[in-house]
Amino acid sequence: MTSFRSIISSILAGGVAVAGLSGASAHAEDGYELWLRYDAPQGVSVDAPEGLLTNCASPSETLEIAVQELTAGFGALTGRSLPEIDGPENGALILSSPECGGRFGGLETDFSPYRTDEYRIGTETLSETTVTHISGQSDVAVLYGVYDYLMRASRGEGFGEKGVREAPSVDLRLLNHWDNLDRHVERGYAGQSIWDWHRLPGYIDPRYTDYARANASIGINGTVLTNVNADATVLTPHYLEKVAALADVFRPYGIRVYLTARFSSPIELGGLFTADPLDPAVQAWWDEKVTEIYTAIPDFGGFLVKANSEGQPGPQDYGRTHADGANMLADALAPHDGHLIWRGFVYSADNVEDRVKQAYDEFVPLDGEFRDNVLIQVKNGPLDFQPREPFHPMFGSMPDTPLMFEAQITKEYLGFSTHLAYLGTLWEEVLQTDTFVKGDGSTVAKAIDGSLHDYPVTGMAGVSNIGSDRNWSGSIFDQANWFAFGRMAWAPDRSAQDIAQEWAELTFSADEGTTDTIVEMMMSSREAVVDYMTPLGLTHLMGTGHHYGPAPWVDDLGRADWTPYYYHRATREAIGVDRTASGTNAVSQYADRLRSRWSELETTPDTLLLWFHRLPWDYEMKSGQTLWEDLVGHYERGVATVHDFQETWTNLEGQIDQARHDQVSQFLAIQAEEAKWWRDASLAYWMSVNDLPLPEGSEQPPLSLEAYQAMEFPNAPGQGE
Amino acid sequence: MTSFRSIISSILAGGVAVAGLSGASAHAEDGYELWLRYDAPQGVSVDAPEGLLTNCASPSETLEIAVQELTAGFGALTGRSLPEIDGPENGALILSSPECGGRFGGLETDFSPYRTDEYRIGTETLSETTVTHISGQSDVAVLYGVYDYLMRASRGEGFGEKGVREAPSVDLRLLNHWDNLDRHVERGYAGQSIWDWHRLPGYIDPRYTDYARANASIGINGTVLTNVNADATVLTPHYLEKVAALADVFRPYGIRVYLTARFSSPIELGGLFTADPLDPAVQAWWDEKVTEIYTAIPDFGGFLVKANSEGQPGPQDYGRTHADGANMLADALAPHDGHLIWRGFVYSADNVEDRVKQAYDEFVPLDGEFRDNVLIQVKNGPLDFQPREPFHPMFGSMPDTPLMFEAQITKEYLGFSTHLAYLGTLWEEVLQTDTFVKGDGSTVAKAIDGSLHDYPVTGMAGVSNIGSDRNWSGSIFDQANWFAFGRMAWAPDRSAQDIAQEWAELTFSADEGTTDTIVEMMMSSREAVVDYMTPLGLTHLMGTGHHYGPAPWVDDLGRADWTPYYYHRATREAIGVDRTASGTNAVSQYADRLRSRWSELETTPDTLLLWFHRLPWDYEMKSGQTLWEDLVGHYERGVATVHDFQETWTNLEGQIDQARHDQVSQFLAIQAEEAKWWRDASLAYWMSVNDLPLPEGSEQPPLSLEAYQAMEFPNAPGQGE
Repeated sequence: MTSFRSIISSILAGGVAVAGLSGASAHAEDGYELWLRYDAPQGVSVDAPEGLLTNCASPSETLEIAVQELTAGFGALTGRSLPEIDGPENGALILSSPECGGRFGGLETDFSPYRTDEYRIGTETLSETTVTHISGQSDVAVLYGVYDYLMRASRGEGFGEKGVREAPSVDLRLLNHWDNLDRHVERGYAGQSIWDWHRLPGYIDPRYTDYARANASIGINGTVLTNVNADATVLTPHYLEKVAALADVFRPYGIRVYLTARFSSPIELGGLFTADPLDPAVQAWWDEKVTEIYTAIPDFGGFLVKANSEGQPGPQDYGRTHADGANMLADALAPHDGHLIWRGFVYSADNVEDRVKQAYDEFVPLDGEFRDNVLIQVKNGPLDFQPREPFHPMFGSMPDTPLMFEAQITKEYLGFSTHLAYLGTLWEEVLQTDTFVKGDGSTVAKAIDGSLHDYPVTGMAGVSNIGSDRNWSGSIFDQANWFAFGRMAWAPDRSAQDIAQEWAELTFSADEGTTDTIVEMMMSSREAVVDYMTPLGLTHLMGTGHHYGPAPWVDDLGRADWTPYYYHRATREAIGVDRTASGTNAVSQYADRLRSRWSELETTPDTLLLWFHRLPWDYEMKSGQTLWEDLVGHYERGVATVHDFQETWTNLEGQIDQARHDQVSQFLAIQAEEAKWWRDASLAYWMSVNDLPLPEGSEQPPLSLEAYQAMEFPNAPGQGE
Repeated sequence: MTSFRSIISSILAGGVAVAGLSGASAHAEDGYELWLRYDAPQGVSVDAPEGLLTNCASPSETLEIAVQELTAGFGALTGRSLPEIDGPENGALILSSPECGGRFGGLETDFSPYRTDEYRIGTETLSETTVTHISGQSDVAVLYGVYDYLMRASRGEGFGEKGVREAPSVDLRLLNHWDNLDRHVERGYAGQSIWDWHRLPGYIDPRYTDYARANASIGINGTVLTNVNADATVLTPHYLEKVAALADVFRPYGIRVYLTARFSSPIELGGLFTADPLDPAVQAWWDEKVTEIYTAIPDFGGFLVKANSEGQPGPQDYGRTHADGANMLADALAPHDGHLIWRGFVYSADNVEDRVKQAYDEFVPLDGEFRDNVLIQVKNGPLDFQPREPFHPMFGSMPDTPLMFEAQITKEYLGFSTHLAYLGTLWEEVLQTDTFVKGDGSTVAKAIDGSLHDYPVTGMAGVSNIGSDRNWSGSIFDQANWFAFGRMAWAPDRSAQDIAQEWAELTFSADEGTTDTIVEMMMSSREAVVDYMTPLGLTHLMGTGHHYGPAPWVDDLGRADWTPYYYHRATREAIGVDRTASGTNAVSQYADRLRSRWSELETTPDTLLLWFHRLPWDYEMKSGQTLWEDLVGHYERGVATVHDFQETWTNLEGQIDQARHDQVSQFLAIQAEEAKWWRDASLAYWMSVNDLPLPEGSEQPPLSLEAYQAMEFPNAPGQGE
């Protein structure tokens, strides 16, 4: 009895041509294994241990998983089995943690200097026996160390003379799933929700375990299962049983579950007539509900709340503040050590002078008024996950309130799942920006990791790009964004380039030249999207609702601040929004040095030019071209870069397995077509406004503006419901 | 460079314990390969050819696929490669078709006696050289033969002295996808639609090929891509380009695409003020639209139309008949050899005397009035895919109009994707029922295959259970229903037991005892569902809208014929619907012999008792028990049978790979729980009506009727939108 798959492998290995074999795709590299393929590139020598020792009579589930990973991982990498041994031998790998004896080999380990979830990897020589150890401050830390060790081994990278000492710089490293209970994923481009609510808790899809494993491997330690546009139903007993079943799967991987709490739940589920946070009956309802949750899920992480934003109910419905609302829920969670995460993404319908100013205006005055277990979760920029924005001015401005950084891993505004856009560079750009609030070096990263203001708790959240698609994220390259988020949540100072390098090596197991080429594409990919979508600080020009494709012409929605026009205000004379003192003065929300830098044209970088300034089309740019010429140049560079990607990728054929090479090729072709669509439709519109000719050598858009405007995409994925 | 997967295989093969290895599930038997695993059971000797010869200088794509399947299939089965050879050699396998020379070995083949898509498999000795040939009336017929040959080989079954001669008994063998353009699948329980409309045509998911392959392997030759509750958008150029891309993938597998046509499309897309089928502008609009479709898809199959049913627009909106509507569309399709399939599933809101009579009443008078390229597609029973109904009285009653048989493969009313319910027995029961319209032996099967009335074209349609779930159908056992539908569409007389046997062998590659056990479970599974849901001819007692779980108490919906009460009419005195001459006289729609058989209590089988008769609770059954006692007995038998399945399946552990064994075990546990819920909730309700005690030894339902009534499932999958 020989299985189909092993025969296919041997046929392929043996060089027998099975060209275009259908059916074999079942076992092609389909991306399911993510970065955990444990497949070393040709020529890389894998340094594997000779045996495995755990100093643990009754290992936790977590340690058992660590052992299984090592056994399977080194099995895959070396083709040999990794025997479990009873005592230290030369070449042994030893796992230890305080929860499990706290010894490796014969040595007592002093774990007292270890920080929370710190792990160390190193070698020790014990009476002529040289062993490697992975020791952790907790069993989960050991598991983190095991993944680090295996991924280093896969990449042929050791851990040096000094060994490895790693501890997360951020406490809460969370995914946010914008997943509805009907499995629709808002802003999801990778199929439907992987939470199969209907068949839970009876059916535990093995995918839940694989999800937990992938997240643990990059240090993620919490997941908010439900959409911030929340449905109170998830708090009913019927659903809590399902949530508890997921929590049971995730627990050994060090991952806690969180839920979104709909602020009006006491009315919808509790039959109360109010959700006023200062009403004792409301507080009592939440106290009881939270106790019910912790009875089912003792390590429940807490709530994430979107309130008084985009139609969600909240404390302002009762004349109360965000602090009133957050504190009421925080008080319910505090006895159980739960956290209350309150989203800072708010903008009211009443004040549309400048939407990007509103969150700051609402929250900064409340600094210091929140309970100790409250965090405010703030998007990277003041608008909404655009291809480029300046950093959010709240970062650095609330020294007495822990601010979490909210990144969007799913590419709502950067080409859905088909465009190659590595977001590591976007996040790095924001995290490495100096806020100057406490002098030089007050980077956003330092605000986030708590070192700037000595926050008692810190966090980073990423809006998940995970769905039921076989490859999890909709595309292979979008897996890099999940990976990069995990890496940066662990250490916000980590370099986007290093992360890309690591991911590419693990994902493709290709030769060095191929990996370098892939990393180069990744590193320039986000700027290409900025160029063909929203260059020079333009923003939010996407199609209404679904955000698919260009629609800069839209100016007639229910609210002005939902229209692209609101963000570019292009007229025959000028384009851009004046956010200096002569305009909305949004720039005043930044520290003095940035305010003055971004108020002056000379010191405003081109990348943020039209974000902060309104300029005539013939304004002379640093390039010497007019603004209009320079703008057109950006669109064309964006399109050209994607064509370069296509050519580069075609040249990698044979270096990458066929299945993944094919998929990426097809997606790059889609991206090339859509980049050109963005360029053509945008230029057709700008020309209709400014009446200027295209610079010499620029092609006319092939269709009329009306043709672009007439395009409709009622079934574009990921829309709100 | 050794891949993770092959190492895992070798570790497992080598007996190294990797218990509970997470991550390995990526390569576990996850059901993706369906019945095409090409994995022979232990002890089965696979008779493989020595070489492969195609008599074709420039083989079609179809023949290339046939060659690839043979190469990969026998590679998997034997571990050896199958060389392509140039001339006949001993042990060679030779493929031939008229499209490709029509010779095998040196012999000219006379294809003139071959029926449409007939294939033959046999051995020939040509001057001392013994060869096997697969010859087909078309290249697709050869491909059918290749799948047959490979599946026989996998099962260790040869083709005997006389060889194989197989031709389909039915012309159109279609899947109906109730898939919306937003990827929601109405009555889908296996994830979302596999049609990734948004990324089409740029991205051709390899899954489309695997879909075509699976369907071709069981003889399906057409697929209706879109929901019968239709969206005109699919007929726009933007979508037709996507449809054409799918058609290109399916074409070499002999599969044509069909679309559902929304009757009001001329208004919605064409800007006309009417969709009146007798309006020349409407006819012209459809003529042009159909020409546009055939320009993109030269082998387009045709339209499927649901009209004047459940809110869909149709010709009756303009005072026209079904024939007027169907003929207008048929005229548009006729020049391109397209078919127009009109659904017979209609029931109007105005006439609720007896819903099950209406389709017959509306259609039978129109017999003979339809164009030659029209087929009327009729559900197996007169109500709606219930666990049991009598056959639809239209079968046999329209000698001059080809009637297609519509089966529901997806289990809307039989436990979604978790309950084990093999539908082969349901369809066989209907197909083998004698309509008596032309005397003894006038079975439904003979009406369908055209032999009863000499239909010019014949068809069978199955409402697909395919979705994005990795295992395609939501569960392993639901794959059997897809398989069985294909087999029965090819040959409506095929035995459900034989099909189950074949499927189980191909799917599990287990020893004979295990296979027999599995087949036994399958063969009794549908009756178990009838027992715990709707015994003794009861029907449509499911929850409102989603059809999940029991709700016999519902009696207050917008239309009486949407309520369970309408179908049981239980009072303190009696239960059931009198459909004899003293009642609705629905029985009169059947031929005399059936009418009299089902009008009399003595000759009505218990299985249809309360379908045709209204009886007091103390009616004495053939069993000697009262109706009430007998009814309770059915519920208990249903629950007990599922418990037996659980025990049986547990005993098969080790005989089935762990991944699939685990999934089935979890689903059986869900089924056991839900069977009990059906029994408990149903009995609680009946008792509230008839005020009778449970028979001695019967357990009281654990909850109050009110508790069952209060259960809500707003997010149950598969609901209409």
